[in-house]
Amino acid sequence: MTVAAAPRTWDHRHLLDVEGLSRGELERVCDLAVEMREARAARDNRSMLEAETVGLAFYEPSTRTRVSFELAAKALGATTVDLVVAASSVEKGESLVDTARTLERTGVTTLVLRHQSAGAPQVVARATGMRIVNAGDGAHAHPTQALADLLTLREALGPLDGRLITIVGDVVHSRVARSNIHALTSVGARVRVAGPRGWVADFEGWPGVEISTTLTDGLRGADAVMALRVQLERGVQLIGEAADWRLDSERMEMAAPAAPILHPGPTNEGVEITSELANGPRSLIGRQVENGVPVRMAVLALLAGAA
Amino acid sequence: MTVAAAPRTWDHRHLLDVEGLSRGELERVCDLAVEMREARAARDNRSMLEAETVGLAFYEPSTRTRVSFELAAKALGATTVDLVVAASSVEKGESLVDTARTLERTGVTTLVLRHQSAGAPQVVARATGMRIVNAGDGAHAHPTQALADLLTLREALGPLDGRLITIVGDVVHSRVARSNIHALTSVGARVRVAGPRGWVADFEGWPGVEISTTLTDGLRGADAVMALRVQLERGVQLIGEAADWRLDSERMEMAAPAAPILHPGPTNEGVEITSELANGPRSLIGRQVENGVPVRMAVLALLAGAA
Amino acid sequence: MTVAAAPRTWDHRHLLDVEGLSRGELERVCDLAVEMREARAARDNRSMLEAETVGLAFYEPSTRTRVSFELAAKALGATTVDLVVAASSVEKGESLVDTARTLERTGVTTLVLRHQSAGAPQVVARATGMRIVNAGDGAHAHPTQALADLLTLREALGPLDGRLITIVGDVVHSRVARSNIHALTSVGARVRVAGPRGWVADFEGWPGVEISTTLTDGLRGADAVMALRVQLERGVQLIGEAADWRLDSERMEMAAPAAPILHPGPTNEGVEITSELANGPRSLIGRQVENGVPVRMAVLALLAGAA
Repeated sequence: MTVAAAPRTWDHRHLLDVEGLSRGELERVCDLAVEMREARAARDNRSMLEAETVGLAFYEPSTRTRVSFELAAKALGATTVDLVVAASSVEKGESLVDTARTLERTGVTTLVLRHQSAGAPQVVARATGMRIVNAGDGAHAHPTQALADLLTLREALGPLDGRLITIVGDVVHSRVARSNIHALTSVGARVRVAGPRGWVADFEGWPGVEISTTLTDGLRGADAVMALRVQLERGVQLIGEAADWRLDSERMEMAAPAAPILHPGPTNEGVEITSELANGPRSLIGRQVENGVPVRMAVLALLAGAA
Repeated sequence: MTVAAAPRTWDHRHLLDVEGLSRGELERVCDLAVEMREARAARDNRSMLEAETVGLAFYEPSTRTRVSFELAAKALGATTVDLVVAASSVEKGESLVDTARTLERTGVTTLVLRHQSAGAPQVVARATGMRIVNAGDGAHAHPTQALADLLTLREALGPLDGRLITIVGDVVHSRVARSNIHALTSVGARVRVAGPRGWVADFEGWPGVEISTTLTDGLRGADAVMALRVQLERGVQLIGEAADWRLDSERMEMAAPAAPILHPGPTNEGVEITSELANGPRSLIGRQVENGVPVRMAVLALLAGAA
Repeated sequence: MTVAAAPRTWDHRHLLDVEGLSRGELERVCDLAVEMREARAARDNRSMLEAETVGLAFYEPSTRTRVSFELAAKALGATTVDLVVAASSVEKGESLVDTARTLERTGVTTLVLRHQSAGAPQVVARATGMRIVNAGDGAHAHPTQALADLLTLREALGPLDGRLITIVGDVVHSRVARSNIHALTSVGARVRVAGPRGWVADFEGWPGVEISTTLTDGLRGADAVMALRVQLERGVQLIGEAADWRLDSERMEMAAPAAPILHPGPTNEGVEITSELANGPRSLIGRQVENGVPVRMAVLALLAGAA
């Protein structure tokens, strides 16, 4: 829809976060992802990245993100190599930077990195010559997830200018939310963060961002709603009234008619979202996963200068 | 040998167990496996499954089965992706069905699943659109192992009609035994299960199955003998007289002359079988492993409609 | 430089250690590695090993060695399969030899094996028909590391005849040092091992090897210096005066002007070597890693009879 506006050059060596991407660049990734989806189905572009070696270094466990990146790289003919961090030289106390330098010297050209520390991908980008793709760093950023969500929303709602997207939950601890806020406001959407004060107050004063501290206010008139995972495994405590923030079909009546629901997964069904809503007609959750592979194909191709 | 009898169509979307396969279908898998073995050696068929993405999800550790499936898929040009369950989102408490749906949405077309729960592959087959291959589910079924064993026996003995195959050991807890009983009786063989009463009594009244509760009776006249692994790692207790059930060359004299011995591996040498017998001229144990790859090539090709 | 002298035949089925390699063979591996480096950059030879299946069985964690072998095999078009030992049938108590036989029967033609027990690769080489590449066995040998180091030294210093290479540290526990001593003396270099008596005394009387028990003596006149990792994770105790053995720029003044420094990695910066030295202009540490991939390409090709 905005193909004409998208820039034809791509000047970014890394994808560390979405803050550095212009509206045109964000839209270009989405446009290219649509092309990549078709190319994958037709088995085109299968040697586009044959000169590339993509390393997968996941210091935190992941199914969907790691598999998505691996399949994206393979679909374009890249050689892939998995660091298998749990069984790797982490046990020898090797630092992240030393490991990254080693991977570069073995011929890895693009490193997909997930790490528990915010800023880890930036550190590696400065210390090596590899292209770095941030696959999630602490509570900081998860840019390819935000790009997949952007594509998903664009395909569901059309142009996002002026549309209102509400993000519900523990926004302050969520790298997905943070990257989505940047991406959505960049393309002209309005973002409302809704949650108990401790989960949203940090966003006071952010341009294009509204704050709601009741669910009713948060959902009112929203064109789409994004629920966040309560990250129980990170020791995040449910705030006393957490059940008050659970999304269900009845509460969704406050939003715009047929407003879709998104969730970065994996869901805790019955915690932040009901099973009925997560699996019902409003849900775009499966579509978000589906869009993950072509978006990552687009990102790998753009960074490699192949698209 | 039975090519003419084998049906030319293949109507199964999944391979969940062997009960659903007709004699003609079982023989067709074996026939196709023989062709696949030759094709692999000649490096033919290397793009037969290039449109397929085979996911490997092993929730229990495995060497031979996982490696066999991975090499079978790669030999036919499929893209493979390993879930690496130990390091995956299992830690986030994601359910099997949610993980499977995620894999489907990333583009996995065939899922090879090993799971500790009987019935898990059926659940995933109902919940997703992927082709599911059961690589072992609890004590229920291990169909590709049974198919490899069937091919191995057929190549050693010729047609199996009326031949007597004795399965010795903890039959009731063995998914391998259960699948072999179904496969062997389907192709017209007689099966005798031999073990202490607690390990075999459940099979009383099964069509085509005899029960022996002494080893002497069990082995008498057998055309082939299959020993089972005592699964010490599953907490299976050796029954008091277990040593009485250990297979050795002397006891094998009760069976038909030169009757071969099979074992699904890994063997506990000195527990259920002597080292001499496992590594001697009667042993088909290595052949069973060798046949695992072409049988799995055949299964993947048939399910994908490529054969 | 010594191409003319290198033999055109290659009679070794396995690479278990470097003792069995002649000077001509060592130089041939290095020559071929140089060709492989260029071929890799040009993306030539990408189907040279398409008939091979390379199994990676790392019973000890590794980043650089495992990744190097995997990328070397893939660069030549081999099929690779990772045993993923931590999640494998090791839990079922399967022996190394049984696992290796299983891998052979699934079609693995070359097995890259790292194991904590010295001699494990020899055992597997005797028990199976696979080509075996030792990727490090206990404190015994690490031949491909020594070959990468040999290439690195040759490219830095030119012909090594009569050049003095000092190896500093816990030589007696180091498979890297042991393989380097064999390789370097075979090509005509002099080797000096320097460390506290307990770390070097075993090498008394080795042909071509000198012993120093002070760092000053050890470094004097050395044409290159190789530091070893203090393997804290193996329970190696730092000997009281270990800090006296730390290599730094000042101490390197004892060596020949601009003598390069090597280290097999990962370094414990500040323990056996200063960060300044490890990352300074004398350092060949990165180059050692870079040379690892083409050296392993050369080894895989030679063993397979493809080069």
